[in-house]
Amino acid sequence: MATVRLLTDEEAGAEALAVFDDIRAKRQTDYVNNFWRALAHDPATLKATWERAQVVMAPGALDPLVKEPVYIAVSTANGCDYCVHSHTASARAKGMTPTQYGELLAVIAMAAQTNVLATALSVPVDDRFKA
Amino acid sequence: MATVRLLTDEEAGAEALAVFDDIRAKRQTDYVNNFWRALAHDPATLKATWERAQVVMAPGALDPLVKEPVYIAVSTANGCDYCVHSHTASARAKGMTPTQYGELLAVIAMAAQTNVLATALSVPVDDRFKA
Amino acid sequence: MATVRLLTDEEAGAEALAVFDDIRAKRQTDYVNNFWRALAHDPATLKATWERAQVVMAPGALDPLVKEPVYIAVSTANGCDYCVHSHTASARAKGMTPTQYGELLAVIAMAAQTNVLATALSVPVDDRFKA
Amino acid sequence: MATVRLLTDEEAGAEALAVFDDIRAKRQTDYVNNFWRALAHDPATLKATWERAQVVMAPGALDPLVKEPVYIAVSTANGCDYCVHSHTASARAKGMTPTQYGELLAVIAMAAQTNVLATALSVPVDDRFKA
Amino acid sequence: MATVRLLTDEEAGAEALAVFDDIRAKRQTDYVNNFWRALAHDPATLKATWERAQVVMAPGALDPLVKEPVYIAVSTANGCDYCVHSHTASARAKGMTPTQYGELLAVIAMAAQTNVLATALSVPVDDRFKA
Amino acid sequence: MATVRLLTDEEAGAEALAVFDDIRAKRQTDYVNNFWRALAHDPATLKATWERAQVVMAPGALDPLVKEPVYIAVSTANGCDYCVHSHTASARAKGMTPTQYGELLAVIAMAAQTNVLATALSVPVDDRFKA
Repeated sequence: MATVRLLTDEEAGAEALAVFDDIRAKRQTDYVNNFWRALAHDPATLKATWERAQVVMAPGALDPLVKEPVYIAVSTANGCDYCVHSHTASARAKGMTPTQYGELLAVIAMAAQTNVLATALSVPVDDRFKA
Repeated sequence: MATVRLLTDEEAGAEALAVFDDIRAKRQTDYVNNFWRALAHDPATLKATWERAQVVMAPGALDPLVKEPVYIAVSTANGCDYCVHSHTASARAKGMTPTQYGELLAVIAMAAQTNVLATALSVPVDDRFKA
Repeated sequence: MATVRLLTDEEAGAEALAVFDDIRAKRQTDYVNNFWRALAHDPATLKATWERAQVVMAPGALDPLVKEPVYIAVSTANGCDYCVHSHTASARAKGMTPTQYGELLAVIAMAAQTNVLATALSVPVDDRFKA
Repeated sequence: MATVRLLTDEEAGAEALAVFDDIRAKRQTDYVNNFWRALAHDPATLKATWERAQVVMAPGALDPLVKEPVYIAVSTANGCDYCVHSHTASARAKGMTPTQYGELLAVIAMAAQTNVLATALSVPVDDRFKA
Repeated sequence: MATVRLLTDEEAGAEALAVFDDIRAKRQTDYVNNFWRALAHDPATLKATWERAQVVMAPGALDPLVKEPVYIAVSTANGCDYCVHSHTASARAKGMTPTQYGELLAVIAMAAQTNVLATALSVPVDDRFKA
Repeated sequence: MATVRLLTDEEAGAEALAVFDDIRAKRQTDYVNNFWRALAHDPATLKATWERAQVVMAPGALDPLVKEPVYIAVSTANGCDYCVHSHTASARAKGMTPTQYGELLAVIAMAAQTNVLATALSVPVDDRFKA
């Protein structure tokens, strides 16, 4: 499908190619996945997105095995099939076990159902939950 | 606001009151938050939701400090203000630090922006991401 | 809140006022609710929305007590607090009982949770479900 | 696509297989659809989801021909393609006519458009719509 | 996929065919795209949707090159793959350049990320932003 | 409401205060709106968001009076009340007329309704719309 062609290395401009090369170097792989090849039509957004992603997804106060599940959760709630696939693969590559994945889906499902219950009932926020 | 009145202990029926009591016992608090008081109009759903929540949110292969951030992430993506407040409070009660909270918001924001980019470009899923 | 002022009868232009009068006549009430008073800044959209709503929400092959629950369901999933309130009130005015309301919320919650499970797992559609 | 393999009867564990058998028995069919086969990697969630679904979707104060349209509505608003297909098929199997389906889509579309109008205008909820 | 068959001219009833013919005439093309062929099962909704679309999307105080980007933005946020494709094609046909498309995606991504930040923080609306 | 306190100039750290000052300088106003005061708890995200926003929202191939309507459209579809208010105010400050605003809302509503129709029908994308 795609609304743009995925750019090969040959088709990408110099600025985009530099990002592709950085992706390969940082991830220690030859593979550049489709998301970046689609974004390559706009090298400025490609570069800004890749650079921000590295900062945000780096290990910090939260472990990558917290960050990837959160990413999957947001992508699921937003219905982004590409992101669900890429970050489920990423979480597994970083060590997410099948049992952890099962628990993750159970939490996402629990949240989704209480979200609609609270919204349908328009439950007022308790004072103690406010900052 | 609310589309139903929040039921006090006096107004709740026996089945709902038993759930309120269980919430108080399990959480070791006198406080029953508004979500449960709104749900109390339908004791069967109140009971099923409370019981499922305990199973799903219990410590397991994923730590509560993974589960609560995931819950916040889903609630944010779904725009549930009540759930955002209650689970941010819950995550803090379980030890989420301000730095962790900052990182959580950054991951949610990163996911939200790549979600729309992938969706707008309709990027095809890479074969290697498929099971 | 509101991004526009709610127009009173005195402030509304002739075209908007004609819609207000039609709302009062068709609903046999003196009350024009806030949604229409906000829309009145754009009389063409006000008129088109009101006229389409009458066609769509009229009794037909589906009973109003099917249509209103569907409206509540969509409004809940979309997180529209105004619409949740107005159509919950409307459903009650048309005879929705507390028990029916409880079942409605349970179905909405069930759908929301299986929606995220199917999306997170990216379950392929069974051939037999395709037209 | 799918982020997990769909489990055949042979691959499913004993607990998952028992759910498959219950699905076949209750639905009086040999067919177990993909959703359950994907969920079978986590037998506890599979079982909890199937059991809750039976309670929630059973005929009650709301007819199955109210519940299925509500399910389709939520699934549509959440953009769950799998759920849209499976519950449209289910609604038809339970007797939804083409005319009813047409009216259902018209109500969903009406709700979606007024949802965004009310949200964009941030229309305050009328006092009379509050509980 | 589709939950209904796409109707050919031969299969469409007289009322639907008249809309197909109007689409061809207004757009000066022989091609009727899949959306309308799917909607043709319900000629009344087909006609109402087509007629309203012409009014709303016509050049007015906003240029078509404002309206199409807005349409793409909404369709992206709602995760409607069909609409993303058809309106990206439409925007290009009306003159949207690759640079404009790149900027459009950047704005959509910016909005998506600040939307979740504001929602997760539940930032109160400044008085000066209220009407 | 808010899940964090809005930081005053006195409470903000040096890095956050520098961003506040830059906002005041660039916008030529003394006022720093609530969004930035809430984000100030995480100065790194505050700075990254403000800097990216300036790049993305600057006049370019798309006029600010295209970018702001797109921002309103995404914020509406995502149900972000804060963002709807702040960007409606911003669009007006940049010259959006009431007539343009009315047309914008009509396009958003049109898109929302065709989004759900295409999703509920799961209309396959026409080959000619693919890149």
